[in-house]
Amino acid sequence: MTTVKAYGSTAPENALEPLDIKRRDVGETDVKIDILYCGVCHSDIHTARNEWGGAKYPVVPGHEIIGRVVTVGDDVANFKVGDLVGVGCMVDSCQTCNSCKNDLEQFCENGATFTYGSADQHIKGQQTYGGYSTMVVVDKEFVLRVPENIDPAGAAPLLCAGITTWSPLRHWNVKKGDKVGVIGLGGLGHMGVKFAHALGAEVVMITTSPEKGNDAKALGADDVLISTDQEDMAKHAASFDFILNTIPVGHKMDPYIQLLKIDATMVIVGAVEPLEPFHGGGLIMGRKRVAGSLIGGIKETQEMLDFCGEHNIVSDIEMINMQDINTAYDRVVKSDVKYRFVIDMKSLK
Amino acid sequence: MTTVKAYGSTAPENALEPLDIKRRDVGETDVKIDILYCGVCHSDIHTARNEWGGAKYPVVPGHEIIGRVVTVGDDVANFKVGDLVGVGCMVDSCQTCNSCKNDLEQFCENGATFTYGSADQHIKGQQTYGGYSTMVVVDKEFVLRVPENIDPAGAAPLLCAGITTWSPLRHWNVKKGDKVGVIGLGGLGHMGVKFAHALGAEVVMITTSPEKGNDAKALGADDVLISTDQEDMAKHAASFDFILNTIPVGHKMDPYIQLLKIDATMVIVGAVEPLEPFHGGGLIMGRKRVAGSLIGGIKETQEMLDFCGEHNIVSDIEMINMQDINTAYDRVVKSDVKYRFVIDMKSLK
Repeated sequence: MTTVKAYGSTAPENALEPLDIKRRDVGETDVKIDILYCGVCHSDIHTARNEWGGAKYPVVPGHEIIGRVVTVGDDVANFKVGDLVGVGCMVDSCQTCNSCKNDLEQFCENGATFTYGSADQHIKGQQTYGGYSTMVVVDKEFVLRVPENIDPAGAAPLLCAGITTWSPLRHWNVKKGDKVGVIGLGGLGHMGVKFAHALGAEVVMITTSPEKGNDAKALGADDVLISTDQEDMAKHAASFDFILNTIPVGHKMDPYIQLLKIDATMVIVGAVEPLEPFHGGGLIMGRKRVAGSLIGGIKETQEMLDFCGEHNIVSDIEMINMQDINTAYDRVVKSDVKYRFVIDMKSLK
Repeated sequence: MTTVKAYGSTAPENALEPLDIKRRDVGETDVKIDILYCGVCHSDIHTARNEWGGAKYPVVPGHEIIGRVVTVGDDVANFKVGDLVGVGCMVDSCQTCNSCKNDLEQFCENGATFTYGSADQHIKGQQTYGGYSTMVVVDKEFVLRVPENIDPAGAAPLLCAGITTWSPLRHWNVKKGDKVGVIGLGGLGHMGVKFAHALGAEVVMITTSPEKGNDAKALGADDVLISTDQEDMAKHAASFDFILNTIPVGHKMDPYIQLLKIDATMVIVGAVEPLEPFHGGGLIMGRKRVAGSLIGGIKETQEMLDFCGEHNIVSDIEMINMQDINTAYDRVVKSDVKYRFVIDMKSLK
């Protein structure tokens, strides 16, 4: 095992601080990665602060990892030293269940091993430690290839915010000419706008804030719908082929359901908490659907990264040093970032 | 115009009473039907009592109509005198919008004309009057062919309860071997059990009542899941390919969502009112879906009736005379019917 530098929290109320953690030796199917950048996801904060419960300390967050391969195991043929790679929200799964066989490792029936806070499958009694660290060892099946032509720092958030928005757009077959609404313009929403635009959809930013509407247009939105403007909401009623709902908290769903066309779907990717009551009639009239979506499988994540290479898509980021993480957390909680903090891991080395 | 006998309510608080109503003369595309039977749907009661608002009096309910053709217009080629026919929830639609062109007249963009309580498209200033009557004149596009081999009284509820459950089972492609849950055993639920069974699914009745569970088995259910039994609910977690939710009021959704497999759908057909809050995470984990469904289009209703002919499926009914309607209403409200009242219209003639 190797001791490497990391940042983590030792208790829910503690700020993140420098820690030493152990990484396993490189096994036959492992890839050892020198971490260049790691994105800061709101889930990192929820976990560091144990807001979802069940956190084991120390928590070393980070599941938007970009780095370069420094060693590969004997059974690794598809990666070589020097490759630019990414690691997202998962680092292991059973690889044998129906979900895994269907490229849905995120729904592994035996439980996916998430990049931080899961039981480590290789180091007994230890939880997994994420990307707020200088190095990580990951099984080749969970290492993604990152196109060399895109900005590697901006690519970091693709590994969570990117795939979380890409997967439902693809699963629900968003295509050229579709009218797609994106609700909320944060880390997820801004990627939703970029992807839906790149897929050829007519993208409408749905927001309470005219300022965010303008920002969304700069990112590729064709139109802006101010959700507090009843007249505008009525004008857009029953007109959307698909709505990507990135609101991170429980909220009123009826006004958005009314925006859907017949047979259209609204997908919730942010609100991992109770939704406010909505009217059954809103779904019944027009045979509409509300669905959920969770990140995406490894194959789909690679497809997204390849698409980003072809279309030169990355996240809009604000780079920080590892030492600035606690200030960054406070700003994320206040939604004061456009649109994702990315840690420059040089600062920890 | 012809004056015919009917039963209707003249105010929300009034019992139903004998009325005379006008039916239009038979136009070129019309079919005049001698009504033999009419099913009693809970919607009839909601409308007669103005529980959904907007009722125009008198209300003559009834949208599960079975009868025989007595006259056809000059442009009617597909029906002839003596044919056994049905009329469901709709009697007109624009026939030109996208929904109508796609055989989804129930979602006509210009507003379908429902069988009772809509603005009549042929008699200015009058609302439509339903099947609690001896005769009706309906445009040929909204007349269904009823197989002669099935019991015509039992066929009446197919026109609403039948299509309401058939349509989502077909739309969501329920097929042989699928594990299908049906929640609630009333007029809708009992048809859901019959149809899912006939489509080859493994049908599980989901109910709070062991007695209803036994009844469901007699109708074709393979298994019973008592929804208040936490252990049983846990045993069936993440195992259903599809759930048909016929609960007619708002209710807790989380326990049922947890029963769905990955990518599986629960369809709400009964709860035309606010649903209780449910947890976004329940949809996100497993990419699950909650959808609505409203009756079905005319083409699909005909397909259902043909299927019923092939499989000899009708509703389980209790026959009443027109004069018993107010007692029947009270019993429907108490769920005291297995599973649908059908009015023998001879009693009104």
